[in-house]
Amino acid sequence: MRHTSAQAPSVVDRVLDVLAAFTPERPAMTLSELSRRTGLPLSTTHRLVGELARRGALERQDDGQYRVGLWLWEVASLSPRGPVLRDAAMPFLEDLYEATHENVQLAVLDVPDVVYVERISGRNAVSIVSRPGGRLAAHATGVGLVLLAHAPSDVQEQVLAAPLRRYTPKTITGADELRRVLADVRRDGYVISDRQVEMVSLSVAAPVYGADDAVVAAISIVIPAAGPDPRSMVPAVRAAARGISRTLGAPRALRQPS
Amino acid sequence: MRHTSAQAPSVVDRVLDVLAAFTPERPAMTLSELSRRTGLPLSTTHRLVGELARRGALERQDDGQYRVGLWLWEVASLSPRGPVLRDAAMPFLEDLYEATHENVQLAVLDVPDVVYVERISGRNAVSIVSRPGGRLAAHATGVGLVLLAHAPSDVQEQVLAAPLRRYTPKTITGADELRRVLADVRRDGYVISDRQVEMVSLSVAAPVYGADDAVVAAISIVIPAAGPDPRSMVPAVRAAARGISRTLGAPRALRQPS
Repeated sequence: MRHTSAQAPSVVDRVLDVLAAFTPERPAMTLSELSRRTGLPLSTTHRLVGELARRGALERQDDGQYRVGLWLWEVASLSPRGPVLRDAAMPFLEDLYEATHENVQLAVLDVPDVVYVERISGRNAVSIVSRPGGRLAAHATGVGLVLLAHAPSDVQEQVLAAPLRRYTPKTITGADELRRVLADVRRDGYVISDRQVEMVSLSVAAPVYGADDAVVAAISIVIPAAGPDPRSMVPAVRAAARGISRTLGAPRALRQPS
Repeated sequence: MRHTSAQAPSVVDRVLDVLAAFTPERPAMTLSELSRRTGLPLSTTHRLVGELARRGALERQDDGQYRVGLWLWEVASLSPRGPVLRDAAMPFLEDLYEATHENVQLAVLDVPDVVYVERISGRNAVSIVSRPGGRLAAHATGVGLVLLAHAPSDVQEQVLAAPLRRYTPKTITGADELRRVLADVRRDGYVISDRQVEMVSLSVAAPVYGADDAVVAAISIVIPAAGPDPRSMVPAVRAAARGISRTLGAPRALRQPS
């Protein structure tokens, strides 16, 4: 929990700590579990949860457990890097999915992770570990390599200076290797991330540009490692990324091809 | 703002008031706009917004305006009636979209409204007013009629007792007429909502059942009023609704057809 050091947590911090206690692994909790997870006294938890539930930020289930409420989701749907970006991207993600029937993803950078804003999964596509609202280490994913390649250099150095988590024997964990790959991504305009997260799948990713011509997101297609040549997917992924960039008003995507 | 009457707003209420100030019409605001919208002193607003931004619940843009942050969206993605329901429904919504290329929607009831949890829009489909995270009056929509038809009788009476908003000349605004329609929906297992929201479109909706065999959501397809016979869409919509119900573990959708 990111509290200002050497200062008692404020009520705002406590409210956010209660919300932050909910995770994909623990989406529903009793009052005493919430008290234990947040480190708040049971009486404080009881009062905060009661107020949050009254406003719809939490919802009480029939079994007495609490979950994140619909009201919070309505507010959060206004997040510009979440659903707003998603709405601009959706028609192009649909097209990509319909053309390939493989998993299609949209992600943004929150160093050192990528956050998945959208995923379209075919029922017959290769299974993947990402989920909307979920995270993976940026250096290990196609979308993450694209986003890091176009991040400010201080952001890149921050990632390069920290240990790089290994998911598979193919995960890039060396700073020098990562530096080389990021340079390649900038030169090529796409990346093929080969079995870095799971040994059964790889991804092809390309950058999405915003109105200020900076990279704001990345999209990827995840395909079986034993499937077709991933290079055959590059034009479709790049075309979809350009379409989203154009929708967002990126100058480079509005220009006529020369 | 739903404060407990005759009591000063708590810090929790103030935090939620700041979040609630963001709407689809006002997704970005300066500190002074937030102060005005919430009725909080500028100094209080400044402190609350600072704490919310530090934790990622709000994000400050380059122009100094604040928006809802990515962190809040990550937490809200755990809402069971939002993205969790959506993930179960998505493959079936995809199928329905691919088969028809018309707008497909998933909604839940929050009396007197429906809240749209998901929408897949074709670029060539009829334009519609709903958006994910958005609301419409339940009595005026196909998904709303389905959800009201299966709501507890006290919830139905609450809606029937209040004025029913008119969107078009075809909107149901009489309590007796609404009662009759709800009985028809329960008997038929679907509804065709004819030009109730806009004169150019109609919707075909069917109920989604949860693990306790209660209706938890509704799906619909929105098609041009001047298009094909809506009755031709009924089997596809009902089949998709049954597929989602089965994924959610609804006993009635797991039974073999007799």
